[in-house]
Amino acid sequence: MAVYTEVSDDALQAFLAEYDIGSLVAFRGIAEGVENSNFSLRTSQGDFILTLYEKRVDPADLPWFIGLMRHLSAKGMSCPLPVAGRDGEPLRCLCGRHAAITTFLPGVWPRRVRAEHCRPLGEAMARMHIAGADFPPARPNALGPDAWGPLLDRLRARADEVQPGLAAELDDALGRVLQGWPAGLPRGHIHADLFPDNVFFLDGRLSGLIDFYFACTDLLVYDIAVSLNAWCFEPDFAFNATRGRALLAGYHSVRALSDAERAALPVLAQGAALRFVLTRLYDWLHTPQGALVTRKDPLDYVRRLRFHAATKDFHAYGL
Amino acid sequence: MAVYTEVSDDALQAFLAEYDIGSLVAFRGIAEGVENSNFSLRTSQGDFILTLYEKRVDPADLPWFIGLMRHLSAKGMSCPLPVAGRDGEPLRCLCGRHAAITTFLPGVWPRRVRAEHCRPLGEAMARMHIAGADFPPARPNALGPDAWGPLLDRLRARADEVQPGLAAELDDALGRVLQGWPAGLPRGHIHADLFPDNVFFLDGRLSGLIDFYFACTDLLVYDIAVSLNAWCFEPDFAFNATRGRALLAGYHSVRALSDAERAALPVLAQGAALRFVLTRLYDWLHTPQGALVTRKDPLDYVRRLRFHAATKDFHAYGL
Repeated sequence: MAVYTEVSDDALQAFLAEYDIGSLVAFRGIAEGVENSNFSLRTSQGDFILTLYEKRVDPADLPWFIGLMRHLSAKGMSCPLPVAGRDGEPLRCLCGRHAAITTFLPGVWPRRVRAEHCRPLGEAMARMHIAGADFPPARPNALGPDAWGPLLDRLRARADEVQPGLAAELDDALGRVLQGWPAGLPRGHIHADLFPDNVFFLDGRLSGLIDFYFACTDLLVYDIAVSLNAWCFEPDFAFNATRGRALLAGYHSVRALSDAERAALPVLAQGAALRFVLTRLYDWLHTPQGALVTRKDPLDYVRRLRFHAATKDFHAYGL
Repeated sequence: MAVYTEVSDDALQAFLAEYDIGSLVAFRGIAEGVENSNFSLRTSQGDFILTLYEKRVDPADLPWFIGLMRHLSAKGMSCPLPVAGRDGEPLRCLCGRHAAITTFLPGVWPRRVRAEHCRPLGEAMARMHIAGADFPPARPNALGPDAWGPLLDRLRARADEVQPGLAAELDDALGRVLQGWPAGLPRGHIHADLFPDNVFFLDGRLSGLIDFYFACTDLLVYDIAVSLNAWCFEPDFAFNATRGRALLAGYHSVRALSDAERAALPVLAQGAALRFVLTRLYDWLHTPQGALVTRKDPLDYVRRLRFHAATKDFHAYGL
């Protein structure tokens, strides 16, 4: 579910009057996405997405996200392009929320990941990293390694409600990950949330990347670590090395991975798994019953974390 | 939220191969609707809606719904037109659900009802009643007066959990409504769920009616009674007689209401309110906590029921 805010007709009409994108033809809430309210918007000039930014997005970050999407679009990446109003401004307010209109990307996200998806994913990720290199502003990763300790501190007392021994397991993992965290690897702007529902395919080709609202400036190879977690595990939590190899090969064909980056994969993959354990655990313990959002089981990422912790080196990922 | 069933890429491709509607361009879940899973489907030939029928819809009723929509479309009503596959069949299975593709209707449902919406609503409802007159099959109203007693029997023991005294109030109302229920009024096919989210407007005109999955054969004026409840109350449960008058005048301008139909409005409006109290109360008491569906407060319709019970005659509705 991703409509937290209803937009009244009058408010929508007044909002659209600020743009030069034609008259309203259709407007429907989109069921995908969990952070913001998204609407499919059709006007006499074409199709757009209207996003209302909900509480998890810091309004201070919005200009950075918008700027990054514009930059990537200008560099030829297929991602949502924020549409400016008549005043040149792509961000305004609607129904008490910050809001933006972006272009509509054709394509369908893969409900069932196959190895054929993973090479194009790696290629697009690397192209995005290169395209972002000359976007000067930086945005620290608010959910990066520095955040995990404080987040775990808030969860430790209740973690064992979800699984006995979980607090101790996460403490161990955090210590190990922070101790092994690499220094000196290439940094840049990363998507940081490249899950299957943020990657569109059309006729067997990757047609676009969406949802840049976790994007930040961090180790480039951390983006790979997130996607190894999100794309390369079977439903029974077995790691699918064919997918891992395709993802890494696709990435490497566009932007060569250094030896140091490859060597860091196991600890980065543990870190990425830990990040999703912690945020999902937070949501699991704090989502009110009866809420509209499906809580995602944090233990799915504990299983991934254990796989990465047991890997000897980057060869485990199919390299 | 209205995506209960995820459709895998392979299943979608195989499904679309049964149709002659072009190749897949985009596919997104729609957040509206509570009974079925709905997806916005774009192909190289245009836009469509894919509906997967979930548990509340009896598969045995689907051919009737499809037949009625085809009939109404052929008569010039703007409603979703079921699209037949290459085999001529508009109904098939997808992901373990019965499924159909229908045409996409432009328009936006009114989030904030105004009197200007109500006259076109009444006109379209009357046109639909006339257009349906020569569709021979009948479908009994499974949520009509005969169903209310048995439904209340299942709820009586827990109704007072929602509001002390509610069980007795509903028993009184049911007795009064059944005793006053009219005989001999014109019958036909009615929508039976013409709430604002099932009525689209475009450029100030009504552009279409959707969601015929409660449609049935019953008193025509009962459809008006449902919409008086759904469209003509203020957020504080005051009845807006300007809207009621517009709805009734619009209807009457297309299909003249008899004196007997007008006289029956107060009891029919009570019955319609009672129907929504009962089904919402059922959902309220039976929806698991954490479910994806927003439970609707049954007391909203108790307030409406009380208004109708206190009306002296049909003049209360603005006639």
